[in-house]
Amino acid sequence: MNPKIRELALSVKKNSRRVAAASSQQKRIVLETLAQQIKQNENAILEANREDLRLAKEKGIQDALLDRLSLKNRLPDLVEGIAQIALLPDPIGEIVEERVLQNGLLITKQRVPLGVIGAIYESRPNVTLDITSLAILSGNGAILRGGSEATLTNRGLVELIQTSLAASNLPKEAVQLLETKNREEIKDLLKQDDAINLIIPRGSQALQEFCREHSTIPVVSGGVGICHLFVDESAHLERSLEVIHNAKTQRPAVCNALDSLLVHAAIAETFIPRVFDRLKNVTFRISWDILHPSCQKAEEKDWDTEWLSLVLGIKIVKNLDEALEHIERHSTGHSDAILTENQTSAERFVQSVDSAAVYVNASTRFTDGGQFGLGAEAAVSTQKAHARGPMGLKELTSSKWVVRGNYHVRP
Amino acid sequence: MNPKIRELALSVKKNSRRVAAASSQQKRIVLETLAQQIKQNENAILEANREDLRLAKEKGIQDALLDRLSLKNRLPDLVEGIAQIALLPDPIGEIVEERVLQNGLLITKQRVPLGVIGAIYESRPNVTLDITSLAILSGNGAILRGGSEATLTNRGLVELIQTSLAASNLPKEAVQLLETKNREEIKDLLKQDDAINLIIPRGSQALQEFCREHSTIPVVSGGVGICHLFVDESAHLERSLEVIHNAKTQRPAVCNALDSLLVHAAIAETFIPRVFDRLKNVTFRISWDILHPSCQKAEEKDWDTEWLSLVLGIKIVKNLDEALEHIERHSTGHSDAILTENQTSAERFVQSVDSAAVYVNASTRFTDGGQFGLGAEAAVSTQKAHARGPMGLKELTSSKWVVRGNYHVRP
Repeated sequence: MNPKIRELALSVKKNSRRVAAASSQQKRIVLETLAQQIKQNENAILEANREDLRLAKEKGIQDALLDRLSLKNRLPDLVEGIAQIALLPDPIGEIVEERVLQNGLLITKQRVPLGVIGAIYESRPNVTLDITSLAILSGNGAILRGGSEATLTNRGLVELIQTSLAASNLPKEAVQLLETKNREEIKDLLKQDDAINLIIPRGSQALQEFCREHSTIPVVSGGVGICHLFVDESAHLERSLEVIHNAKTQRPAVCNALDSLLVHAAIAETFIPRVFDRLKNVTFRISWDILHPSCQKAEEKDWDTEWLSLVLGIKIVKNLDEALEHIERHSTGHSDAILTENQTSAERFVQSVDSAAVYVNASTRFTDGGQFGLGAEAAVSTQKAHARGPMGLKELTSSKWVVRGNYHVRP
Repeated sequence: MNPKIRELALSVKKNSRRVAAASSQQKRIVLETLAQQIKQNENAILEANREDLRLAKEKGIQDALLDRLSLKNRLPDLVEGIAQIALLPDPIGEIVEERVLQNGLLITKQRVPLGVIGAIYESRPNVTLDITSLAILSGNGAILRGGSEATLTNRGLVELIQTSLAASNLPKEAVQLLETKNREEIKDLLKQDDAINLIIPRGSQALQEFCREHSTIPVVSGGVGICHLFVDESAHLERSLEVIHNAKTQRPAVCNALDSLLVHAAIAETFIPRVFDRLKNVTFRISWDILHPSCQKAEEKDWDTEWLSLVLGIKIVKNLDEALEHIERHSTGHSDAILTENQTSAERFVQSVDSAAVYVNASTRFTDGGQFGLGAEAAVSTQKAHARGPMGLKELTSSKWVVRGNYHVRP
């Protein structure tokens, strides 16, 4: 056990208690100050970010990752995001349940912070701000282990976060950055189960597995989305094309983008050529033999691939049952959709598909904390314990039972 | 990876889907049948239990554990417990949240089963019935790994559970017993994160740590309670004695029994002798030097000991602050209490103590699913993620977002 990691965890734990006890106003002031700080320090942040990008390019990091790393033109949205979070209702202190028992005890379940959130993520420095803003308003401390390629950017952002905590009379040590490339140190972090209450990994499947494997702290894993859309024979075909186009192409590199399109056999012959026409920049992996120039024959492993790019699998299925079977086998439980005019099929799909978000006649791209009205998201959970789907403020809380009596004893 | 374990996990997962889709009535019939089955097979269960007890005695297992293992005179309560659970509201399908977004999408958060619960426990065969009854009514499958000393009893009970599932047209493979003494097989079970959704360890600290260490599945740990009671200077002393007596002696071997009594210095001299008088069968570990015949001087490690027997630590503290500091350092976050007539002190205690259940003027013995009106409990969680405190039906559920639109696309 690296003593530096132990010390970091205990320091954040200790200082998080002051954030837990802070008033709503005090926490909002942190976020408002942070938004201002980012505006005032825009040049310095962008300079640090450019340096990160330069170093990343030198290392030959691929373009998609460079794009995620870059804050160019993105700071105004991030500032706006923080300001939006600052307007959300403070979840802490909310009475979740309350009742008087027959024996006269008053029992109250009240919402409390989780304590300390450990976030382990790759590339995107916006995660630093999203997670920290949500963590602070929900009364938590945070340990941030961002991607090493974003070190300078994250260091700058965390300094501003700490300045903002101090400006609201809260300890800056409640949010700390762990700068390390050493996997043993990350393993040590994952063992601090008496100091850290929840680990949120954001990134690749390999990162998620690493955290699940080595953590003794509860891990919320997610963010890997092999998303399906089933076009039923009764669907409105013209409008379906627009939903497919949106789900696949509006932002192909994210987890809620479409990966596999399932088409009912009864409409396949007429509908699929229209899909090829509408999705001009997309290449296809298809389940049958007659090929279009932009198609390859799908291999079995393609159905278990999250494309994160302009590639789309298409499979012809003979009915809803076959679609459900395919989804049960290949979905990662993130976001899956049906397009249909048949209410019975829609409800069967909703009840049968075991995913964090199940859609009827809408694009999978809506699975997002902002879109769902949660203000932002700390992650999208695809597991079932603790939280499922976009994680907002409430998903960063726990509860405690308060029991008030009159010297009650148990018979 | 032992293929037997993989097969078991996949079998329960597959069959749990039918329990997830079952109607409330169908699930209640399982529990009603189970209650009848136990009554009808009382002799056979008790015979299996006596044989387990005989083998345990041969192995020299200690009396406290034999007591936990024994079902003698306990079956009527267990039957009554199952019948009570059968009367509880079915949590599945409940609409947790629902709203129409500005763009017209209808989003609904609905309660769904977790899927498969993995319970790993020691001795007490009543856990087999408590966890399974709650799991079934909340639509889950279960894998039960009971203590090896209860093998024959658990085997008999699981047969009755499976008969009861079949009697309600549900697959008996949705609940299965894992009989193994091989720790490697339990480690394998803890890696089935694509088939099991939550691990509930019930038993010693060592068992909890083993599960946290080896599991890639979310673990809810708990059940280890170093419980405190602080007697403030303003407390009603006569009535306080009764609460202390109850918390320490009513059932000393359980997790919500009192371990450490903290007494305000202003009342220590008059009050503590009365504690000695009232708790005649108890021996004491005390923080000061003037000793009573039933006292030993406390060592530092005593404050971190869950006694589970008629031993009580007593410490004199100079004020509420010192009590809070002691509790923060030594509590396991299970159940902690203040006895006071001072509202300000009571509220400070409630806000400052970070435990699953915090009491004002009541015995810690109330931390219990039955007492809290949850019908029964699958465990008492002392962690903050997923569930905290007694885990009833709701704590064995997850949620899913259902989004209904009109061919909506994300702008």
